[in-house]
Amino acid sequence: MKTAVYAGTFDPVTYGHLDVAERATKICDQLIIAVAEDNYKNCLFSLEERRSFVEEATKNLPNVRVDSFDGLLVDYCLRQGGCAIIRGLRAVSDFDKELQMALMNRKMCPQIDTVFLMSASKYLFISSSIIKNSVAVGGDISYLVTPLVEEALRQKYN
Amino acid sequence: MKTAVYAGTFDPVTYGHLDVAERATKICDQLIIAVAEDNYKNCLFSLEERRSFVEEATKNLPNVRVDSFDGLLVDYCLRQGGCAIIRGLRAVSDFDKELQMALMNRKMCPQIDTVFLMSASKYLFISSSIIKNSVAVGGDISYLVTPLVEEALRQKYN
Amino acid sequence: MKTAVYAGTFDPVTYGHLDVAERATKICDQLIIAVAEDNYKNCLFSLEERRSFVEEATKNLPNVRVDSFDGLLVDYCLRQGGCAIIRGLRAVSDFDKELQMALMNRKMCPQIDTVFLMSASKYLFISSSIIKNSVAVGGDISYLVTPLVEEALRQKYN
Amino acid sequence: MKTAVYAGTFDPVTYGHLDVAERATKICDQLIIAVAEDNYKNCLFSLEERRSFVEEATKNLPNVRVDSFDGLLVDYCLRQGGCAIIRGLRAVSDFDKELQMALMNRKMCPQIDTVFLMSASKYLFISSSIIKNSVAVGGDISYLVTPLVEEALRQKYN
Amino acid sequence: MKTAVYAGTFDPVTYGHLDVAERATKICDQLIIAVAEDNYKNCLFSLEERRSFVEEATKNLPNVRVDSFDGLLVDYCLRQGGCAIIRGLRAVSDFDKELQMALMNRKMCPQIDTVFLMSASKYLFISSSIIKNSVAVGGDISYLVTPLVEEALRQKYN
Amino acid sequence: MKTAVYAGTFDPVTYGHLDVAERATKICDQLIIAVAEDNYKNCLFSLEERRSFVEEATKNLPNVRVDSFDGLLVDYCLRQGGCAIIRGLRAVSDFDKELQMALMNRKMCPQIDTVFLMSASKYLFISSSIIKNSVAVGGDISYLVTPLVEEALRQKYN
Repeated sequence: MKTAVYAGTFDPVTYGHLDVAERATKICDQLIIAVAEDNYKNCLFSLEERRSFVEEATKNLPNVRVDSFDGLLVDYCLRQGGCAIIRGLRAVSDFDKELQMALMNRKMCPQIDTVFLMSASKYLFISSSIIKNSVAVGGDISYLVTPLVEEALRQKYN
Repeated sequence: MKTAVYAGTFDPVTYGHLDVAERATKICDQLIIAVAEDNYKNCLFSLEERRSFVEEATKNLPNVRVDSFDGLLVDYCLRQGGCAIIRGLRAVSDFDKELQMALMNRKMCPQIDTVFLMSASKYLFISSSIIKNSVAVGGDISYLVTPLVEEALRQKYN
Repeated sequence: MKTAVYAGTFDPVTYGHLDVAERATKICDQLIIAVAEDNYKNCLFSLEERRSFVEEATKNLPNVRVDSFDGLLVDYCLRQGGCAIIRGLRAVSDFDKELQMALMNRKMCPQIDTVFLMSASKYLFISSSIIKNSVAVGGDISYLVTPLVEEALRQKYN
Repeated sequence: MKTAVYAGTFDPVTYGHLDVAERATKICDQLIIAVAEDNYKNCLFSLEERRSFVEEATKNLPNVRVDSFDGLLVDYCLRQGGCAIIRGLRAVSDFDKELQMALMNRKMCPQIDTVFLMSASKYLFISSSIIKNSVAVGGDISYLVTPLVEEALRQKYN
Repeated sequence: MKTAVYAGTFDPVTYGHLDVAERATKICDQLIIAVAEDNYKNCLFSLEERRSFVEEATKNLPNVRVDSFDGLLVDYCLRQGGCAIIRGLRAVSDFDKELQMALMNRKMCPQIDTVFLMSASKYLFISSSIIKNSVAVGGDISYLVTPLVEEALRQKYN
Repeated sequence: MKTAVYAGTFDPVTYGHLDVAERATKICDQLIIAVAEDNYKNCLFSLEERRSFVEEATKNLPNVRVDSFDGLLVDYCLRQGGCAIIRGLRAVSDFDKELQMALMNRKMCPQIDTVFLMSASKYLFISSSIIKNSVAVGGDISYLVTPLVEEALRQKYN
C-alpha cells in the first residue's frame, strides 16, 4: 500500500488514535493523518489546535504527514493519490456505523477501500467523549492522552 | 391486513423508506404513510416539505395515502382503524431501540402490533443523517433520494 | 395479506412460537404453520410429534392450517400462493442470522417477502434449547410450553 | 458487601431504577443512591427535584440512603468507604458503554469494582428518554414511574 | 452478601475465571465455586480434573470453597443458602445468552438474583474454546491458564 | 505492505472470500491465500479440494499465491515474512469473535497485525454454512460460488 489516509476530527487525539496510526505506518509507505474541519461547530478544540496536537504526537513517526481537509473524504483521498482509508475499530457499538460509512464511501468512490485496524486492547474502550467527561470531573487521564493534550484539556475545563 | 401505518419524521424521505413502503403495500389493503410533527424542532425540513416529498415519491403507488399526525402514534392508528404499525429494519444498532418502541406501543395499545420489514440490502446501511452529512460536504446522493429531495437538500446546504 | 407461512422445526413448539403465530393470524387471512423436515437429524422429536404438538396447540385458532414441508422454503411458499414468510424476532443475537436468511430468501424469490413480528416481552429470551436444558436438570417449564409438550419433554429426559 | 453506591442522574427515577435499587439492597448492608450534579445542563429536573423523587420512592427501603454528588464517582465512593458501584443492565445497546465506563473507573481506582444487576424483564427496555417522549405526546406512563414523578412530568410538558 | 455461587463447567478454568472469582470474594462473605457435572459429555476434562484445577488455583483465596453439583443451579443455590449467582461478563456476544439464563433462573427462583462482574480487560476476549484451539496448534497459553492446566492441556493434545 | 496472508478453511470458497482477496491484492505486493488443514474433521471438502477451488478461482489474479498450512497461523506468517493477516468483516455477529482472534494472535506475535477488509455489500450476509444449507434443499447458489464449486456442492448433496 503506497499511501493511506487516517482521517477524523481528533478532538483531541488520544493514545488510541496514535496506536492505530503507528500500526498503519507498518502497512503503507506513507500515512497521511487528515484532521477534518469542524463544519458543525461541535469540536472542543479549533482545527489548528487539533492539528498541532497530532503533529506534536507523531513527530517521531518517520512516514507520517499531518494535514487538514474539508469536504468529502474520498475526494481528498483521490487528490492525495491515496489507495485506502484507515479506520480504527474499537467495540461493537461502533461497528455498524463504521460499516455504514465504509459502504457509503465505497459507493461514491469504488477504487478507494477502507482498511480497519484494531487498537491495543487497553485502548479498545476509550473515546474522546469519555476522556472529556473524565477531565470535567477531575479524573486522571495521563494514560489516555499526551501531556500536551492533557494540559490543554485541563485549561478548557477550569 | 386491512390498513397499516408507516410513520416517521421522514426528514427527508429516502429510497430506503420508499422501498419499505412499497413492500408494505403488498401485505396490506391500504398503507397510510404518516409524517410526524416535529415537536422538538430537530427537523431540517418543515412538515409541509417532508410531506410533499413523500407525496411526490409515492404518487404512483395505488393503495398509499399520505397523512401527517401529532401526538401518540397508537392513538393515531386507532383513529385510522389501523391494525398494524410498519417499521423498517436496517442494521443491528437500530434493533434494540426498535424493540423498545414496539414494546412501549404494545403496552399502551395491545391490539395494535408492530410489523417489521427489511429494506433491500443496498439500503440497509443508509440513514437520513448520513445523507445530510454527505450533501453538506458535496457528495453524490442521487442513488439515495429522489431528484426533488436531492435538489431541496442541495439548496439547504448552499 | 392473504396467506402467510410461519415455518420452523418447532422442536418443540413453545409459547413464544404460539404467541408469534397468534399475532400473525391478525394480519393475514390464512396462516400456514409449516413444520420442517429434519434433514440433519438434529431434532429431539420426530416430524409427526412436532407437527402434532403444533396442531394440538393451535386447534382453537380459526384461520390456521398446520402442514409439514421439505426442500426450499420459498418453493413451498410459492406452491401455497403465500405472499409472505413470518419470522419471530427475539433478542439481538438472532437478528443478524435472521437478516441473512431473509436476504437469501429474497434473492431466490423476490416476490416473497419476510415479515418480522415480535413476541410478548415475557417470551423474548426463551428458546427451545434453553427449555431442553432446563427440563434435563429438572426445572419447571410449565410457563414456557403446553402441558402436552411438557409431558413429552419429561418422558424424553427420564 | 458492606456499602454499595448506585449513581446516576435519575432524570427522573423510573420503576426500572427502583427495581435495580431494591435488588442491590439484598446483596449489600447499605446502599447509597447518589444523584449526580448536572454539569452539562442536560437534565429536565433540578438536582433537588431528582433527589426528592428518589427519596420519596425509596423511603420504605430500610438500608438505603439518598445522597447527591459532584465530581468523580470513584472519589465519591472512596469517601463513602464504598466497595462497589452498582449498575443496572438493560438491553445490548447499553452494554458496550457500560463496559467502557466500568473499565475507566477500574483504571482510576482498582479497589472499587462495578457490580451489574439486571432489572425485571418488564423494565428491560424502558429508559428515561422514552418516558419523556411518551409524556410529551400524551401517553400513559403510570406503569413506568411513581405517581409523584408522573405528575411532575405532566406539569413539565403542559 | 453472605454467600454467592460462581458456577460453570470450568473446562478448564482460565485466568479469566479466576479473576472473576477473586473479584467476587470481595463482595461476599463466602464464595462457592461450583463445578457442574457434564451431562452432555461435551467436556474435555472429567469432573474430578476440572474440580482439582479450580482447587489448586484458588487454594490461597481465604473465603472460597470449591464444590461440584448436578441438576438445577437455583436448587443448588437454595441448598447452600446462596443469595446470588455470580457470572462473569466478557464481550457483547455473550450478553444476550447471559440475560436469557439470568431471566430463566429468576423465573424459577425469584429470591436468587444474578450478579454480573467484569473480568480484567486483558481477559475480556478469552474463552476456554479459543484456548483449546490454541493449544491444539502449538500456541503459547501460559498467560491464560495456570501451569497445572497448561500441562494437562498439552498432554491432551499430544 | 509487502506480503499479507489471508487464511481460512475455505470450505468451500465463496464469492465473498474472493471479493475480500481481490481487495487485499490492492493493498499488498503479494497475497498468500493459505488454506488451513482440517484438524477437527469438520470440513465438507478435503484440503486438496478446498485448495484447488481457490486456485481455480484466483488464477487470473496476478499477485496471489495459494498455499496450505497446518499449525499456528502466526508461525506460518513469520515463515512467509508476512507482515499482516487479512480478515474479511461481515455482519456484527462475527465481530466479537474476530476481535478475540486478532487479540490472541497479536499477543502471540506482536509484530504481525490483523487488517480487516469489508466485502461488497451483496456478500455481507453470506456464509459457507448458509450456502451448504441452501444446496441441500435445492436452492440456486450460482451467484454465491464459482461454477466449479457449485458443481462440487451439488455432487456432495446428491
